[in-house]
Amino acid sequence: MSKILNEVLHANRNYRADFDKGDLPMPPGRRFAILTCMDARLDPAKYAGLSEGDAHVIRNAGGRASDDAIRSLVISYKLLGTREWFVIHHTDCGMETFTNEIMSDLLSKSLKTASIDSSGWHDSCEGPGSTDGKFINWLTIKDQAESVTEDVVRIKSHPLVPADIPVYGFIYDVKSGQLIEVPSATAAGRVE
Amino acid sequence: MSKILNEVLHANRNYRADFDKGDLPMPPGRRFAILTCMDARLDPAKYAGLSEGDAHVIRNAGGRASDDAIRSLVISYKLLGTREWFVIHHTDCGMETFTNEIMSDLLSKSLKTASIDSSGWHDSCEGPGSTDGKFINWLTIKDQAESVTEDVVRIKSHPLVPADIPVYGFIYDVKSGQLIEVPSATAAGRVE
Repeated sequence: MSKILNEVLHANRNYRADFDKGDLPMPPGRRFAILTCMDARLDPAKYAGLSEGDAHVIRNAGGRASDDAIRSLVISYKLLGTREWFVIHHTDCGMETFTNEIMSDLLSKSLKTASIDSSGWHDSCEGPGSTDGKFINWLTIKDQAESVTEDVVRIKSHPLVPADIPVYGFIYDVKSGQLIEVPSATAAGRVE
Repeated sequence: MSKILNEVLHANRNYRADFDKGDLPMPPGRRFAILTCMDARLDPAKYAGLSEGDAHVIRNAGGRASDDAIRSLVISYKLLGTREWFVIHHTDCGMETFTNEIMSDLLSKSLKTASIDSSGWHDSCEGPGSTDGKFINWLTIKDQAESVTEDVVRIKSHPLVPADIPVYGFIYDVKSGQLIEVPSATAAGRVE
């Protein structure tokens, strides 16, 4: 068995040993949802103070308002009763380190990658790659405040999103743990 | 200020008061990623034993292998070095409670919804709705073991997913906190 798989199962045994959350209802108790990045340094339950049962958490690369994130938000509102949403991107995001063109180029060279360190990444060009990613929009980010605002606007203007839901825009600072509001995003997410 | 917004910012002040994670690198330290559901009862950091910096966490309605989830996984592998992936659906999932047809019907009646309790949901038909959701695949679920296997197969057969990455399939039991392996999924996710 893989070391990671073994560690995850071991941690899970500890978690369930004193598990007392077995009777929580399906709808989020605090009736809100967070859309944020998959980044390993982010723990939304910790940075936003969530206990099990409190809120929906949607995560993807960048915390972007993709069609799939909006699918999830609409289900969250319509079927499970959330009434406030947060869009939370973060500093030092991997999505700022590349562009669609770079990703397409990397994938056309190889599906594998090379040594990665905290300063970034570079491609080893090892082995032949048969497919590139040029038909995918990787939803990269140039500026966090802009991307948060863009995503709040996209959510608020989506035809399946109700007009009466407030959407707040924030940037999470990975150096300090602080949530910093993006005023232009929250303004765009306001209920008129 | 909204009560929820106030509570989130208060919790965040507490989190950052003794924050000591400011120097973590961008790539996940334990080099794996989890794809799981947005459900409020699930805390992947707790059920799988993650600290900040350990692993990517991707979440959407159902924990489905949508194109956007695969976008995130490919970035996770290619740019940030994860080398094992988990697909984790769960018991009592909201995605089992409706179908594409029901969702389309609900949205065509109204964007709002009605009283929701732990036993399910029903529509109040309040107000006029101008848009329906019939052009969206909501990625509903009929059977958890089947959906986990289907998603592992979809990930493993995607042209941008490298052949050498193992993908493990699990169901999280919301009553007990236990991760239960889905053998057919893990078999499909095996590296040949």
